[in-house]
Amino acid sequence: MNDHAQQYLASGPNFAEGEVIERIEVFRKRRPRLRDSVVTLAHGAGGKASAALVDAVFVEAFRNPYLESLGDGAEITLPTGQRMAISTDSFVVQPLRFPGGSIGHLAVHGTVNDLAMTGAVPSWLTAAFVLEEGLPIEVLQGIVADMADAAAAAGIHIVTGDTKVVPKGAADGIFITTAGVGLIPPDRSLSPTSVRPRDKVLVSGTIGDHGMAVMLARGDLAIEADIVSDTAPVNGLVDVLLAAAPDTRWLRDPTRGGVGTICNELAHDADVAVALDEQCLPVRADVAGACEMLGIDPLYVANEGKFVAVVPPDQADAALAALQQHSLGSDAAIIGDIAAEPAATVVVRTGFGGTRILDKLVGDPLPRIC
Amino acid sequence: MNDHAQQYLASGPNFAEGEVIERIEVFRKRRPRLRDSVVTLAHGAGGKASAALVDAVFVEAFRNPYLESLGDGAEITLPTGQRMAISTDSFVVQPLRFPGGSIGHLAVHGTVNDLAMTGAVPSWLTAAFVLEEGLPIEVLQGIVADMADAAAAAGIHIVTGDTKVVPKGAADGIFITTAGVGLIPPDRSLSPTSVRPRDKVLVSGTIGDHGMAVMLARGDLAIEADIVSDTAPVNGLVDVLLAAAPDTRWLRDPTRGGVGTICNELAHDADVAVALDEQCLPVRADVAGACEMLGIDPLYVANEGKFVAVVPPDQADAALAALQQHSLGSDAAIIGDIAAEPAATVVVRTGFGGTRILDKLVGDPLPRIC
Repeated sequence: MNDHAQQYLASGPNFAEGEVIERIEVFRKRRPRLRDSVVTLAHGAGGKASAALVDAVFVEAFRNPYLESLGDGAEITLPTGQRMAISTDSFVVQPLRFPGGSIGHLAVHGTVNDLAMTGAVPSWLTAAFVLEEGLPIEVLQGIVADMADAAAAAGIHIVTGDTKVVPKGAADGIFITTAGVGLIPPDRSLSPTSVRPRDKVLVSGTIGDHGMAVMLARGDLAIEADIVSDTAPVNGLVDVLLAAAPDTRWLRDPTRGGVGTICNELAHDADVAVALDEQCLPVRADVAGACEMLGIDPLYVANEGKFVAVVPPDQADAALAALQQHSLGSDAAIIGDIAAEPAATVVVRTGFGGTRILDKLVGDPLPRIC
Repeated sequence: MNDHAQQYLASGPNFAEGEVIERIEVFRKRRPRLRDSVVTLAHGAGGKASAALVDAVFVEAFRNPYLESLGDGAEITLPTGQRMAISTDSFVVQPLRFPGGSIGHLAVHGTVNDLAMTGAVPSWLTAAFVLEEGLPIEVLQGIVADMADAAAAAGIHIVTGDTKVVPKGAADGIFITTAGVGLIPPDRSLSPTSVRPRDKVLVSGTIGDHGMAVMLARGDLAIEADIVSDTAPVNGLVDVLLAAAPDTRWLRDPTRGGVGTICNELAHDADVAVALDEQCLPVRADVAGACEMLGIDPLYVANEGKFVAVVPPDQADAALAALQQHSLGSDAAIIGDIAAEPAATVVVRTGFGGTRILDKLVGDPLPRIC
């Protein structure tokens, strides 16, 4: 059960029991159902199929209050009252090294950024490696050096780890899983339920850079462009944002599935409309060009060093100015706003005065980009 | 740098600078060197090659105070003074299901037990999945159900997770990485540096069950035996032990590499001799028989529901009695003691009045058992 259903339940006293159940059924119908009998690549893409798999298999089995929000990490309250965030991600990107970074950078930045999205100060990281027999030690050392650099840049310590080796052919070089822990300062409270109509939607920089950089690095597309991954730790940039806009409602990093997917999740979880202005989206010309050639909407392409923020209207200009002064936020932009209707929907206002509905990603146009 | 080297450094005032460096050099010479140019299965076996890889690649790159002890998890002190443990493990066992459990049980028990070995109360778990395209959803659901059962039995919540999918042939069905977090009660302090000569060494039950169960489940050995994995959460049993023997010095679960490997680590880290009495080792007859046929010492075979404890001599009987009253500790035994010399060595006293040196595991006789 996610925040949305939970909210219906929490407002129970206002409803007759049957009505509550009916509302939950409505909620359930909104979520995609799992119809597949085997795992497909689409289940790993972060879109509709991923959501269906997570709902049908994991949330169903692990049912507990922590899982209900299904954000970038779980929030724990310690006996002292101190709040703590925990997050984890596996990394299976191919190729292992691409313009702008490596699987090692991603493994650190990915979890650091997930923690930062909860409002936590990322502090401690674990790293578990599944290695394929035959992986050159030199390749491993290079990746581990990237992790050490990334950890230092993000101000996080890699405190413990694990290594497993599987026979040649049983894995693809190296898979890395990191988990991160950080404390949430008392004055920070980020949640989709605090999002209100007229709030502004910001993005911290250009979108689609990472996904396109990895796709082009594979070399099986006949496109020549110098696109560099944006992989970076955004915790410092989040601090800057929250200082300038202390009532920031919600943060999320648009990784797999891109800005389009997380805006859909926000629209559902907050039961609002997210209206994006297509002309305001910061997209590098070469990324836009590659997307057009591939027939992919940049709104669905992954980033690894960006976030989307919802801030109250009166703090939006301060937020934008603060972001733009930071080296990682120079291309930040206000890209849309929140409306009450149509609820649970993302609307894109096109350059021609029209609008289109932006659905969750279906299928997996860009597999294994993280 | 591990506890051992750290201890030399910490006692610095007693040594001239050159002497300290010399002692660290001596320590370094004791640790195996990494001579391989590619990753081999032995690097994942938990023995000498694993230690060399971890030292040369991970500890070298991630150098920080948390990594120095290299135990089952890292200990963090929060700003409130509260101590917390963090641990992680990847699971790549084949077959996915074996007598007594599945990869799902292992993924929960493994991390729960690692946390318990630090003295922490295991409370929150993350679960990250790397799935191979084509994995039947039903198989996944079965594994996830096992994880939910195992989490409930251990009293831990699975609070967040991640799912990645790789193309057919790029993984072997399913790999699971869990990370766990738990708080350490203030009265608990476990460390190899507190181990003293004349302390007693206990094991919580029969050894070698898990490794042999998985080996036989693969069906490529011509041995018929009903050996069942011991996979289980031992946090409850640790509570029982620490209540009966509050001055327990050190705990470790003998997974990969078995009791022999962790006793070697203890001998090195505490700079003592660990003397084991072969006749006191609890080994099931069928496990002993299978080990003999395979030419493997049960001291090197993995367990997933056992621990080794070092307790002060005057609390050993109380510890043993308490363990034996618990369903998971009925076969607990005192298996040896600690001596000052020969330092950094494990000695096995055989049934014939002789002794033999038990070295760290070399190679990987039992690959992918967790």
